[in-house]
This record gives sequence, C-alpha cells and structure tokens, in this order.
Amino acid sequence: MNSLKLYTEYIELELTKVDFPKEPTNLYDPLRYFLTLGGKRIRPVMTLLGAELFGTPKEVVISQALSIEVFHNFTLIHDDIMDDAPKRRNKQTVHDKWDTSIAILSGDALIIKAYELLSQIDPIKLPLAFALLNKTALEVCEGQTMDTDFETQEDVTIAKYIEMIRLKTSVLLGASLKMGALIAGASEKDQNNLYNFGQNIGIAFQIQDDILDLYADPDKFGKQVGGDVIANKKTLLHLTAIGKATLEHREIMNQLQNEDNLNFKVSRTTQMFDQLKVKEDCQLMMQDYYKRAMKSLDAIEIDSDEKITLIELAEFLIERNV
Amino acid sequence: MNSLKLYTEYIELELTKVDFPKEPTNLYDPLRYFLTLGGKRIRPVMTLLGAELFGTPKEVVISQALSIEVFHNFTLIHDDIMDDAPKRRNKQTVHDKWDTSIAILSGDALIIKAYELLSQIDPIKLPLAFALLNKTALEVCEGQTMDTDFETQEDVTIAKYIEMIRLKTSVLLGASLKMGALIAGASEKDQNNLYNFGQNIGIAFQIQDDILDLYADPDKFGKQVGGDVIANKKTLLHLTAIGKATLEHREIMNQLQNEDNLNFKVSRTTQMFDQLKVKEDCQLMMQDYYKRAMKSLDAIEIDSDEKITLIELAEFLIERNV
Repeated sequence: MNSLKLYTEYIELELTKVDFPKEPTNLYDPLRYFLTLGGKRIRPVMTLLGAELFGTPKEVVISQALSIEVFHNFTLIHDDIMDDAPKRRNKQTVHDKWDTSIAILSGDALIIKAYELLSQIDPIKLPLAFALLNKTALEVCEGQTMDTDFETQEDVTIAKYIEMIRLKTSVLLGASLKMGALIAGASEKDQNNLYNFGQNIGIAFQIQDDILDLYADPDKFGKQVGGDVIANKKTLLHLTAIGKATLEHREIMNQLQNEDNLNFKVSRTTQMFDQLKVKEDCQLMMQDYYKRAMKSLDAIEIDSDEKITLIELAEFLIERNV
Repeated sequence: MNSLKLYTEYIELELTKVDFPKEPTNLYDPLRYFLTLGGKRIRPVMTLLGAELFGTPKEVVISQALSIEVFHNFTLIHDDIMDDAPKRRNKQTVHDKWDTSIAILSGDALIIKAYELLSQIDPIKLPLAFALLNKTALEVCEGQTMDTDFETQEDVTIAKYIEMIRLKTSVLLGASLKMGALIAGASEKDQNNLYNFGQNIGIAFQIQDDILDLYADPDKFGKQVGGDVIANKKTLLHLTAIGKATLEHREIMNQLQNEDNLNFKVSRTTQMFDQLKVKEDCQLMMQDYYKRAMKSLDAIEIDSDEKITLIELAEFLIERNV
C-alpha cells in the first residue's frame, strides 16, 4: 500500500496547484474550499497507474488525472444539492456553507475546469481523451438520474440496480484507468481490458458498500450502521431480499418501511435478511464482479509484475472491513 | 434580413437533429423540450457568419454552431433555477415543469453535449476551438456570479456593471463569431477583430435592453415596462442616475425602493431619470460600444461587401424599438 500512498500524495500536491482566479470570490472560493476537503483520490491515482502500466511516467498524464478528479468533485457538489446533504467528509457542503445558486454555478465552473485540465495534452491524443470524458460524463448523469428515479419506482430490478451503479460510479473508474492507458499509447484491446477491470472493480466496490452499510462493525464504521435501511433505500440487499421473500416477509418489509423505532427497524430487517441469506448472495455477486475484473486484468498483454499495484488497489477498495 | 432568416431556419432544422438517447427520460426529455422552445438563435447564426466571412461554408461549422447554442441553453436552464423563474419564452421552465434536481442534472448533461458537439471538428482545429469554449464558458459563470452578487452589493459602479454584462453575455457573442472564423482559418488578428465586434455589439445590446425595460412602447413590449425598476435592479439606468443624483434625489430613490404603489414607483422613477437625462447618457454609451464594434469590423481585412450580413445582424440586435 506504500506505493499507492505516494501516488495519492502526489495528486494531493498537484491538486493544490490547480489555479483559480481570485475573483469573483463567490464562484472560486467554494471550489478552493471543496477541492481541499480530501477524499481517497482513487480516480486520478488510477489514471497515473493506467499510464505507468504502459511505460508512461505519471507526470505526463497528471493534468488528465486532475481533470478526472475535478470532474468527480463537480458531480459531488451538484449531488449534494440534490440530496440536500449538509455534510461531505464531515465538512459543510457548498450549498450549505454558501447557497444553492452558488453551488450550482461553482459546480458548473468546475466541470469547465475539468475540460480545461483535460485539454493540456499532446494534441494528437486530444480527440480520443475528449471523447472518453464526454461519453463517461454523460453516463454519470444518466446513472445519477436513475438513482433519483429509483426512489419513487416500485419495479426496480437487480439488473437495473447494477446498471445504475455501473453508470453512476463504475464507468468513471474504468475511464480513469483507460485515460492513462490511452495517453500512454496502449493498444485498444488493452485499453478496453483495463476499462473493464476498473468498471467491474467499481461495481464490486459498490456492492461491498451496500453490504457494509448494514453489516459493518459499528465501532469502526464512520456513520450509522443501517442508514440505508432507515432511509428505505432500494439497495442490493433490499432488492435481493425482495426477490427471495415470501408473501409474509414482504408484508413485514412493508410494515417496517413506516417503523418509527429505528433500532427495531434495523435489527428486525437484519434478522430477516439473515434468514433469507441476503448477505451471502450479495457477497457472491461481489466476488463475481471481482473475478471478472481480475480476468480483464489478466488479459492485458504486459508482464504480470507490472500489475501488482492495480491488484493492491483492487484489494484496498474491496477488502475493507469498515 | 432575409438572409438572416435563412440562417436561423437552418439552425432550427439542424438543432432538431441533435440526438439524445431515449432513456432515462427524466434526463433527456427536459433537454428535448427546452431546445425546442425557440429563441433567436443569434449565437449559432454568428458562428455560421464568422465562417462564411472567411470563405468556409456553414455546413463545415454547423456542429460548433450548435455546440454554442446548446451551451447557451445549458446556462439558461441553470439561470432559471437560480432566478426561480417559472417561465421562459412563455413556456414553463425545466425546474418548474419537472423539479430542481432534474433541472440541475439536465443542465449538466447539456453542457457535456455542448462539448460533444464541439468535438465533431477537424482534429487540427480542436485545441483552439476547445480553448475558446473553455475560456468563454468560465467567463460566463463569472458574469452570472457578478450579476447575483450585485443584488446585495452597495458599491456597484458603472465600470463593474459593464464588466458584468461583458462576461455574462457579450463574450459568448464574440466567441460565437470567433469560433466560425477560427475554423475557417482566419488570421489571429481578424479573429480578434471579429471577437471584439461581437463583444461590443453584445454590450450595446445589453445597454439597449436596460433602456427598453423602462422606455419601450408598452403596447409592443412583451413584458411589463419598468420591471427592472419594480425589482430594484441595479441596471445601467439606475447606476447612471445614482452617479448624477443630488442628495435629495438619492433620498427619493431610497424611498422608492420600498414603494408599494408600483405604477407610482415606475412613473416617479421615470420622471427623475428624465430630469437627470439618464436615458440620453445610456444611449450615448450604447452608441459608443456600437461604434467600437463597427471599428473592429472595419479593421477586418476582407472586402466590405462581405460584411453586410454582419452589419444587418448588428442593426437587427440594436435598432429594435421594443
């Protein structure tokens, strides 16, 4: 994990060098603020790794790595408005610290900045890199729309749910890696295998995220265990349970939706999920996506020693206990 | 004006061909809806004219013309949220017809689409066209921020106000023309002169807009005459009046801010502005920017016959009585 830490520190340092004008302060202060809130910086690190995998040093792709991180932060600022979230990484969100108009506009300025960072590239590589960001960015918007739509839809299937998390979060992980490989001049086949590795790791990560929300160790988990259950979210656990539930189970699940005693709501739901072996099913799905990711990584035509950092990254993302 | 009408119809037709996926409907239906609300389509027409001025047919730059129109519509969708405007061109705004989250996301998808349309270009031209859109897009965000800031600022000067309208609306007019010229391979000097022509016409247009809000013929004006006065907006008329006002005038202006009788508020303000010759001052400023525009147009090194349509366009924008 030591090498990943070095990459993250490099991103953190370079991110502080991203330049914004001083004025108008209501446009640029929120961006300076938000970009220093931290985060794992997984995506830009992936771009560096994608390039180094094909022999191109990280310095060559740093602008495009930052472009993807800045794009990701744009989506977070706008998502926080839509979710009316007061906090992000334990700090005030932009719309809460300033206001909604400022958060909309700062977000807008940030996606433009992402494109500006992307443009700092060998012109020969620009058309493909540009197309990759455009395609991915639209898909992320589609995923976010599906996620919001699900709140009021009764016919959400597991397949639709996986498609939603693929679009909302996993395509950007795939694109982060592919961006590096593309600039490094990897073959199209290798680029796509790397993309699929990132995408499937992303899906596995999101499934793990759903599982941990209910099954994490409360002492180590940063937030309330069972938050998704309390919010009646249609997570993979919920959808899996629905698929296996008897009529009686469904009735209990319906009643629990309106349960005011939240501790009881969480414990009774957990009990039912345990009975239906929901966690085990989800873990199997997660492992399936993890295996697909590893298969794509295997297929990349370079020495397997070179792939070690990517495997470390995958393990770091998936095998977290909290 | 006949030739301008033909250009507008061409844009209208090509705009219907801009392709969006069917699903998710909550992301793409609002875009299909909003893009068919109409409008003058001035900006994309300018891109066509900018290219034809240097011998490049409109078909070559149509994607970039549409890119600019789509970018403009992105700003409108987000501006409507910030202004909480229920109507745009007498139709429901996106956040009113759907909701704020959908309007934020659809706007986001639209700016990405603008970049996608921009990318359909001779790769050799891409870096400069990309840089032009990035620079302009950030400036538009800056202008919109300044406009919002002004609502609560007491020290707005005429210079700051002109800078705000330059950024909020005029740079995009300049960029629309420059985009066409750039792709057509015009010299950098000609590109910049054309940009300055568009930018100064834009400033003149905005000044005219401020004047008409109070001095338009009520029978021909589509909206309430004096709307800016009623809303206590710091328009150029207001700022000019402040600059010339005696202490007594200022006191009256302060009192009128809270006047409930709106007819009296508008008529008393008009009376005072007339006394201070505010309209005449603003018209002089407008003519000054118009002259600057024409000087830039003159300086472009092509036959003056070729410039006729641009002069028509400038007159169409400025010499409207309503």
